[in-house]
Amino acid sequence: MTLKTREDYRAALAALRPNIFKFDRPVADVTADPLTRRSVESHCRAYDGAHDPALRDLFTCRSPLSGDVVHRWNSLSFSPEALVANARLKRELYRQTGTCTGAACVGWNGINTLWAVTHEVDQSLGTGYQGRLRDWALQAESRGWMVAGALTDAKGDRSRPPSQQPAHYLRVVGETAEGIVVRGYKVMIAGVAACHEILVLPGAALREADHDHAVAFALPRDADGLTVVEARRPSDGRELEDHPDVPATGITQAFLIFNDVVVPRERVFLCREHRFTANLIRYFTANYRACIGACVAGQGDVMAGAAVLMARANGLSSRVFRDKLVEMAVNNETTYALGIGAITLGERHPSGVWLADSLTAHVNKVQVSRLPYETKRLCQEIGGGIAETGCLPSAADLASPVYGHALREALTAAVPGEVRARAARLVEWLTIGAGVPGCMHGGGSPDGARLIVRALTPFDGYANLASALAGIDSPVPEPEEG
Amino acid sequence: MTLKTREDYRAALAALRPNIFKFDRPVADVTADPLTRRSVESHCRAYDGAHDPALRDLFTCRSPLSGDVVHRWNSLSFSPEALVANARLKRELYRQTGTCTGAACVGWNGINTLWAVTHEVDQSLGTGYQGRLRDWALQAESRGWMVAGALTDAKGDRSRPPSQQPAHYLRVVGETAEGIVVRGYKVMIAGVAACHEILVLPGAALREADHDHAVAFALPRDADGLTVVEARRPSDGRELEDHPDVPATGITQAFLIFNDVVVPRERVFLCREHRFTANLIRYFTANYRACIGACVAGQGDVMAGAAVLMARANGLSSRVFRDKLVEMAVNNETTYALGIGAITLGERHPSGVWLADSLTAHVNKVQVSRLPYETKRLCQEIGGGIAETGCLPSAADLASPVYGHALREALTAAVPGEVRARAARLVEWLTIGAGVPGCMHGGGSPDGARLIVRALTPFDGYANLASALAGIDSPVPEPEEG
Amino acid sequence: MTLKTREDYRAALAALRPNIFKFDRPVADVTADPLTRRSVESHCRAYDGAHDPALRDLFTCRSPLSGDVVHRWNSLSFSPEALVANARLKRELYRQTGTCTGAACVGWNGINTLWAVTHEVDQSLGTGYQGRLRDWALQAESRGWMVAGALTDAKGDRSRPPSQQPAHYLRVVGETAEGIVVRGYKVMIAGVAACHEILVLPGAALREADHDHAVAFALPRDADGLTVVEARRPSDGRELEDHPDVPATGITQAFLIFNDVVVPRERVFLCREHRFTANLIRYFTANYRACIGACVAGQGDVMAGAAVLMARANGLSSRVFRDKLVEMAVNNETTYALGIGAITLGERHPSGVWLADSLTAHVNKVQVSRLPYETKRLCQEIGGGIAETGCLPSAADLASPVYGHALREALTAAVPGEVRARAARLVEWLTIGAGVPGCMHGGGSPDGARLIVRALTPFDGYANLASALAGIDSPVPEPEEG
Amino acid sequence: MTLKTREDYRAALAALRPNIFKFDRPVADVTADPLTRRSVESHCRAYDGAHDPALRDLFTCRSPLSGDVVHRWNSLSFSPEALVANARLKRELYRQTGTCTGAACVGWNGINTLWAVTHEVDQSLGTGYQGRLRDWALQAESRGWMVAGALTDAKGDRSRPPSQQPAHYLRVVGETAEGIVVRGYKVMIAGVAACHEILVLPGAALREADHDHAVAFALPRDADGLTVVEARRPSDGRELEDHPDVPATGITQAFLIFNDVVVPRERVFLCREHRFTANLIRYFTANYRACIGACVAGQGDVMAGAAVLMARANGLSSRVFRDKLVEMAVNNETTYALGIGAITLGERHPSGVWLADSLTAHVNKVQVSRLPYETKRLCQEIGGGIAETGCLPSAADLASPVYGHALREALTAAVPGEVRARAARLVEWLTIGAGVPGCMHGGGSPDGARLIVRALTPFDGYANLASALAGIDSPVPEPEEG
Repeated sequence: MTLKTREDYRAALAALRPNIFKFDRPVADVTADPLTRRSVESHCRAYDGAHDPALRDLFTCRSPLSGDVVHRWNSLSFSPEALVANARLKRELYRQTGTCTGAACVGWNGINTLWAVTHEVDQSLGTGYQGRLRDWALQAESRGWMVAGALTDAKGDRSRPPSQQPAHYLRVVGETAEGIVVRGYKVMIAGVAACHEILVLPGAALREADHDHAVAFALPRDADGLTVVEARRPSDGRELEDHPDVPATGITQAFLIFNDVVVPRERVFLCREHRFTANLIRYFTANYRACIGACVAGQGDVMAGAAVLMARANGLSSRVFRDKLVEMAVNNETTYALGIGAITLGERHPSGVWLADSLTAHVNKVQVSRLPYETKRLCQEIGGGIAETGCLPSAADLASPVYGHALREALTAAVPGEVRARAARLVEWLTIGAGVPGCMHGGGSPDGARLIVRALTPFDGYANLASALAGIDSPVPEPEEG
Repeated sequence: MTLKTREDYRAALAALRPNIFKFDRPVADVTADPLTRRSVESHCRAYDGAHDPALRDLFTCRSPLSGDVVHRWNSLSFSPEALVANARLKRELYRQTGTCTGAACVGWNGINTLWAVTHEVDQSLGTGYQGRLRDWALQAESRGWMVAGALTDAKGDRSRPPSQQPAHYLRVVGETAEGIVVRGYKVMIAGVAACHEILVLPGAALREADHDHAVAFALPRDADGLTVVEARRPSDGRELEDHPDVPATGITQAFLIFNDVVVPRERVFLCREHRFTANLIRYFTANYRACIGACVAGQGDVMAGAAVLMARANGLSSRVFRDKLVEMAVNNETTYALGIGAITLGERHPSGVWLADSLTAHVNKVQVSRLPYETKRLCQEIGGGIAETGCLPSAADLASPVYGHALREALTAAVPGEVRARAARLVEWLTIGAGVPGCMHGGGSPDGARLIVRALTPFDGYANLASALAGIDSPVPEPEEG
Repeated sequence: MTLKTREDYRAALAALRPNIFKFDRPVADVTADPLTRRSVESHCRAYDGAHDPALRDLFTCRSPLSGDVVHRWNSLSFSPEALVANARLKRELYRQTGTCTGAACVGWNGINTLWAVTHEVDQSLGTGYQGRLRDWALQAESRGWMVAGALTDAKGDRSRPPSQQPAHYLRVVGETAEGIVVRGYKVMIAGVAACHEILVLPGAALREADHDHAVAFALPRDADGLTVVEARRPSDGRELEDHPDVPATGITQAFLIFNDVVVPRERVFLCREHRFTANLIRYFTANYRACIGACVAGQGDVMAGAAVLMARANGLSSRVFRDKLVEMAVNNETTYALGIGAITLGERHPSGVWLADSLTAHVNKVQVSRLPYETKRLCQEIGGGIAETGCLPSAADLASPVYGHALREALTAAVPGEVRARAARLVEWLTIGAGVPGCMHGGGSPDGARLIVRALTPFDGYANLASALAGIDSPVPEPEEG
Repeated sequence: MTLKTREDYRAALAALRPNIFKFDRPVADVTADPLTRRSVESHCRAYDGAHDPALRDLFTCRSPLSGDVVHRWNSLSFSPEALVANARLKRELYRQTGTCTGAACVGWNGINTLWAVTHEVDQSLGTGYQGRLRDWALQAESRGWMVAGALTDAKGDRSRPPSQQPAHYLRVVGETAEGIVVRGYKVMIAGVAACHEILVLPGAALREADHDHAVAFALPRDADGLTVVEARRPSDGRELEDHPDVPATGITQAFLIFNDVVVPRERVFLCREHRFTANLIRYFTANYRACIGACVAGQGDVMAGAAVLMARANGLSSRVFRDKLVEMAVNNETTYALGIGAITLGERHPSGVWLADSLTAHVNKVQVSRLPYETKRLCQEIGGGIAETGCLPSAADLASPVYGHALREALTAAVPGEVRARAARLVEWLTIGAGVPGCMHGGGSPDGARLIVRALTPFDGYANLASALAGIDSPVPEPEEG
């Protein structure tokens, strides 16, 4: 096989059926439409990595399935080193793009999760899911697909289970000769506009009554019956303007409407086996949350750089802000290395894939919901007033033939006004604009992570340690009622 | 006199010369143009307060100058109670508008600051500035003006003083029969599109060499030679759309281009008396930063409310999030009451105006640069994925005849999808959208505040207390070199 | 009357019956015994203040009851200024003593609280409690008493009310001709060893079934039937050593054992009127928690000074640590001025006493449970390794004829080893030694304060504000079940 | 060889010359004297681990030098797994002892550091240091020694280098036939009272002028000319009392006085090769700070357990405090797994030993100077008033024949008073007593770590990434002067 290039990737995208919409209009070609082309550009940089001598070893690897060298985001991670490389790749991609390249992330994690889960289902029930998954994964490898991953259901009323509000969770509604029929929604799905395929997984641990929702499968992005509506994001209107108030990269997050979509049998990887969904969620979140610290670290690296730019543009040495810059670095490295620690503390699943340690992975999720906010705050603090909320005239105004020269003079400091404006816009984009990736709830909420931390921490055992040290030899039981 | 109504206010605004621009086009009528009408609506609510029985006592007061009942934002604050009312009014306005109503704030503070400073200049130099200011202030009162305040200069290279880069600081460039001629910029000025008048003050403590920059005056917003370009803000493009993705209220922040503007002599309140600018900055920041805690508290109140809405809309009792909601309240009340404390610890200036305590006012500025960020973070955490970055389709998409019904179903939870969408958009607007007021650097940076805290804290005295307690009777001097 | 001196104070203490114990031995004379003399010295400094021209106006005031000039801690606070002076006095006393002078604090607050509550009881029930209180308070004023205040009951199992475990709450067990008989415990009572009188109040809002616990009264510290056992505190053994490892000041906190103590009728201020206890707790905590921010600020001032000393002793300019020192000052001034704000936002009780605003006072309690911990941490960080846990040989070792000279040389830096040792011991004492006052739970727990914050914050009203801004016109009700 | 038992260990200690002092008196037998026996007991538990089937694999390992199974703390760490085991062992030891077992830690790290550095010196200069080190290390293994590590010099004036104040840094002052003569101090050395041998290393990166201070060697703890004075620690006086106010475990930290001590040549591992000291410090701190996160996690585990005990003892379900307990766990796991990440990101030194990644190891040091403080604060908050500062009568008072029964009743809640008292004392000991290990400055200060973070973070590279994203193609240089 041959590794794909950004041109290959774009050509394949351009050939898809135009089933993506935003602002109540269709996107004819995702590679050209300003609504989606920034996300495509971000993903292009992942392909570029495969051909860049400095990045090649990170962005490609030898497939455990085929033995070929493949784009790493299509590969199974059979060692802790492979999972560490997942984290490193994401950090690097954030550095290259400033934001989330969702289709080089969630689908990848989904394949690995399903590899483990199909193993369990097959072992337990004698099904043949892993064989199907293998066939599909080999295609993904050889064609160098970008694969978005779709887990999050609409969920409706959070106090009620799926079975009491089936319309809010994607579900199997029938079968045909070729396969199964699915209906419903997946929401807030990253990278759909930039992907070739979508890998769909259940979004929750399901019970018997919910079994129709226990379904996993892969589909081309332009499958019949599938409609994609892209969510709006902060300042997304700027992406339609013709000026440099936003970077060339970007993200998309979609609402998927499945209107009785037929999924061919060979692309179905789970169907109504509800009791395996708890493990599916467990494996998915452990690996996802171990690696997410690298994402926010990579974006934090860019924020540190943007802060340095702003300081210099304002005429100040970045040394003036050294404590704040170090604090930003501390935040970045904490979520990054904490995730690496979670990977290291993990274990190999019988199917071969490496699973990160759940406890520390979820601890990382909690930190990811806090430390990057502080990093953003520091970036804005260093950046000054025009950076904090991008408080300067638009690029269109800076180019005005009437008063543009005056604005540019007003913005000039240690560098020309246009340069300072660009740096300020970058800070805005990263901290309060379209570049903010939604890392707090992406892949699940911090409170959900706290529940896992609580469940996995042996507080009773710790109380026993404390009793022993305190010289208490009688039991100190939990009261009946708190 | 009669208190003005929102209709009076709007009529007066509509009559002004159209010297405001954004996106390289002029604003014909600020009350109608979507670029500015939200800010006008915000300020309208201040006038409404004067006629609302529940708010009247807060939004109006008896003028110490005329004895008339006036809009409070036009009044001099001759008591701590009056300054506390300034803080309370701002908190209430934030609750009514969700964001900053800049023209009911900075100009007000500027009048009070100038009252004290003109007293000092007149006492010292025998000038007659305070009489001019009185005359203008009486007009402001009787006409019920909104007065924007303009301090921040373009500043250029932060490592160089104004005299080395005069073009970056507003300055007097000449005199005519009627008055003085000024040239240069004031930047990031709040509320200009919603004001009748602009009160201009120096933005820094100036030295002898900088004396041309020591100038204070008042001008109608549409003065000849003045061009106003409004800065863009996060997601400001939405304000041009015709749907409910943003509230009816809003803010503006302007870049002012003074192109040899003539200021009539009776409207000049300081001219080249550079040595009084240090006090001017001191008084302005003390009162401004004492009261700013109320602003962020008021916005925080709305965030707490929006978080409650989102919890309920998601089907969850707000009790689930009680710790986070209490934490939000703690943040809000801390900056609010800390500011009230700073006011209480202040003192009366010989001119009559009440000045807040500088040390604690600047401490409040430091807190304002941190606690609201945490409040926003908590609001996003409670709000969930669609609130964090407003990750849901646009209102245009929700209204789509083709797929809108599906999106609305996907968004329905404990309340209809449209309602949940509005609540999520509010969280987005408050925390990562156009409603974010730029409170970190507004009125000066937190690092500037830290410098004041450092200067005003008697660390040597504290070291002496420590020596006495430690039983150290020999001196412990500062080393030569750190 | 004449203001008392430290000599008067000590003489009166020395005359009391020796009913105080620690380490299973009695204290014959609290002014001389090393177990208690440091606390007495701390309180002496309050009397010194009354005779110090620089402090006299703060440490004394004119009594609203008698019109005499009295020690301020014996006075009723009939104005916000008076309550602000309470806060200021505490900050000053912390600066003078480094720690808590409990008997110049809680009793004072108790008198004011009872003034309001006896007014309510008398108005409602026609009792004559306030007259008794007035008589006793006039004695306290004229004799210049130190009055400890005792609220906290033993409480036992926190999940059960007093009526289900009467032995754990002080209670009325009978009456005699002269008065009432009380039995039980008050625990963790500050300043008992240094007081002349103890003012006892209920420690909780009580219900009908608990009415025997609704009792308030004053007693001489050496009343018959009262046994006082002083709690041990961190490093309290050092106070028995004969060397300078601890300051000359200090605190005590006592367990009071009431063994059928007879309280004369004229000293009883509440007896079984349980329904007034909720207000009693409300008034007490509001004023106490408004002022407690000043206590921790005063100790923080000393910590900032000690940190400066250590930096200099280590040979470093305090400028090296300017950011950390400013952060310490920010913490100190925040709790101080937030409390002043709470006082300012308060209101006058019909009885005349000024009551701080409950919401913001409890917010201050929450901050007091956090910010001083950060201040201590910073003090230890600046102080270095020998300061962090006082990690250096004891004073006895430094004085060793065998190896003391070597240790002193090892400790010498920019100042002689002994001086550096004293500064390090002060940091230890303040941050991890006997000087730590227990401000987190003193006067009630932060979680209790959070409950009040939650109850007093109008979250529903805030949700309505948010609905209005979001353009939501249908109700968003709280779900049945969270 | 045979693994040693606690009895073997104690017997070897008891045979040493009594050169340890505290409170100006000698310690005849460290295993019996209350001044030191708690530290000995802590270290005994490390030997116990070698014989406990559940812990054996962690507390022992196969020596890369001899191939024998040895106590792990005597081994070289030739793989990342071996270094992870170092971290895991420390966490476990903290769980068993509640505090620092210094002699099972620093010496171990020192051996590994010297293994790498002697390799470099030998390679570069043709010396034979590693052979000497191997011989000594094989003895340490076979005899199962506890080895304290001594790095920290007295340092004197921090603004001056060793060469300008040689008395404040240990130094070579001569040579004899057998070896070298050393003089000076090492201070704050953990575990000396519980060790057989002391491994001495330079405490700073040294320059040419400082070369006499570049010396590393091993000595028996009771070497001629060496005097050890133990530092006092918070509440250390209690260890001399005969009651349960402190646990059976403990720590010591010593000042070492080298009075012209002769070190035999075969025990000298570095002598005046100053230019290798920078690497020595680098390797030492990288591995030490990667693993220190496990220490504080282990103590934090005990704090979580103690908090659970206190909640239950007070009659409250630990569920009431679940958010705080989860926060404690998040802190513990963050420093632990962040350290594991630093190890994983490290690399193998040419000598064979595994070196942790410096950047993330120093980031961990910064977190260790913050997160455990918050964990302690939470432990005190959950624990309540008697736990916060151990505010209850001493064990001697609880046992008083006169009033002890009353105190015990007063303390009884959901468990008997004595049990509740023990739990409260444990919280005190862990958070504000002798159990606090001094982790902020132990092994170097957080500000030192920040310097490394700053040096190792490629801020310029990050600025370039930001420029690329912002579309800035001109340089934005650092200004001349900040």
